[in-house]
Amino acid sequence: MTQQTRVPETESAPGNQHVSEAQQNVEEQLVRNVLRSFEDCQDPRLKQLMQSLVTHLHNFIRDVRLTEAEWNKAIEFLTAVGHITDDRRQEFILLSDVFGASMQTINVNNEAVGDATEATVFGPFFVDDAPRIENGGDIAGAAPGEPCWIEGSVKDTDGNPVPNARIEVWEADEDGFYDVQYDDHRVSGRAHLYSDEDGNYRFWGLTPTPYP
Amino acid sequence: MTQQTRVPETESAPGNQHVSEAQQNVEEQLVRNVLRSFEDCQDPRLKQLMQSLVTHLHNFIRDVRLTEAEWNKAIEFLTAVGHITDDRRQEFILLSDVFGASMQTINVNNEAVGDATEATVFGPFFVDDAPRIENGGDIAGAAPGEPCWIEGSVKDTDGNPVPNARIEVWEADEDGFYDVQYDDHRVSGRAHLYSDEDGNYRFWGLTPTPYP
Repeated sequence: MTQQTRVPETESAPGNQHVSEAQQNVEEQLVRNVLRSFEDCQDPRLKQLMQSLVTHLHNFIRDVRLTEAEWNKAIEFLTAVGHITDDRRQEFILLSDVFGASMQTINVNNEAVGDATEATVFGPFFVDDAPRIENGGDIAGAAPGEPCWIEGSVKDTDGNPVPNARIEVWEADEDGFYDVQYDDHRVSGRAHLYSDEDGNYRFWGLTPTPYP
Repeated sequence: MTQQTRVPETESAPGNQHVSEAQQNVEEQLVRNVLRSFEDCQDPRLKQLMQSLVTHLHNFIRDVRLTEAEWNKAIEFLTAVGHITDDRRQEFILLSDVFGASMQTINVNNEAVGDATEATVFGPFFVDDAPRIENGGDIAGAAPGEPCWIEGSVKDTDGNPVPNARIEVWEADEDGFYDVQYDDHRVSGRAHLYSDEDGNYRFWGLTPTPYP
């Protein structure tokens, strides 16, 4: 166990090395004022989140010496992201994905242990309550595609088999679409099953193809 | 001139001191991967902005050990901010104001010099092309309120008078409203004037009252 280290900050803006002491004082005093504005927050975790976010956000603005035109562009961009987001299209999540923020959130909540398989984001096409199949069954349903046999085993971090582990499977058909992308309420390429007493699982699925 | 210093980071989440080396490696590798995804960006400034933003955003997530529920709340919050924003109401700018990001952007673009008056945000009620008045004139127009005499002088950072400096003035009426908040296209409580040959200015305005 060691203290958390940092990925080195990206190279600073050229202007950053020439910030006068008076200017630094103004910038730091502003950060202190904003931090103080959250001081009375009754929820200690919310207070911590807001104060940390403020600190990092200001470090970003100061590091890159953000221009007013760039700030304006950012506001316009976020506004467009907001307006394009509706019940079927969530652009803020896609933005979070692009910045790796979704994956980093998963990371910090799923401790890495040895060479255990890493946790990852569920992605937009996971649906809860997929039908159950028996070990060795077929998840494809009526989905078109080339059949593919999949087998493997679930082991704990000491290498011992994990019996009765729930396995969720969802995949696209040969046209690259998931069942929920069709309007006909089909359920295909999607199931859950349980590992057997030796931690093994096996099922028929579809040979993956590229997304359209 | 000195290197830019930092406001101390807010206290880390309790879990932060107990991040294993394996876990740190996973988190740092992810940051590197995301930074690399912007490596081929053709616009060097955009590349710098994106890579710096990624670094600071990930430092925030890692510092506070952001939970998946908190990430979800943040996505929901940004979605609501996006949906409430329209042509007359810009909640992303208000959000930027609350975090001090607007003011810090102004700060980094307007170097502090001695005890010169600080630059500040224009705010939502500035309008370009306000009418001109002569020095000593009245900015109130037909706005209701108690008259108020204002005078002062414009000096450069060496204390020398600045003649012919353009001064923009805009203020609310005694009901706390700016002219643009009325639907009748009135122009009042708003003007520009120029300092005289000695750098002095003077005009009639309205005694400020609290906003509603």
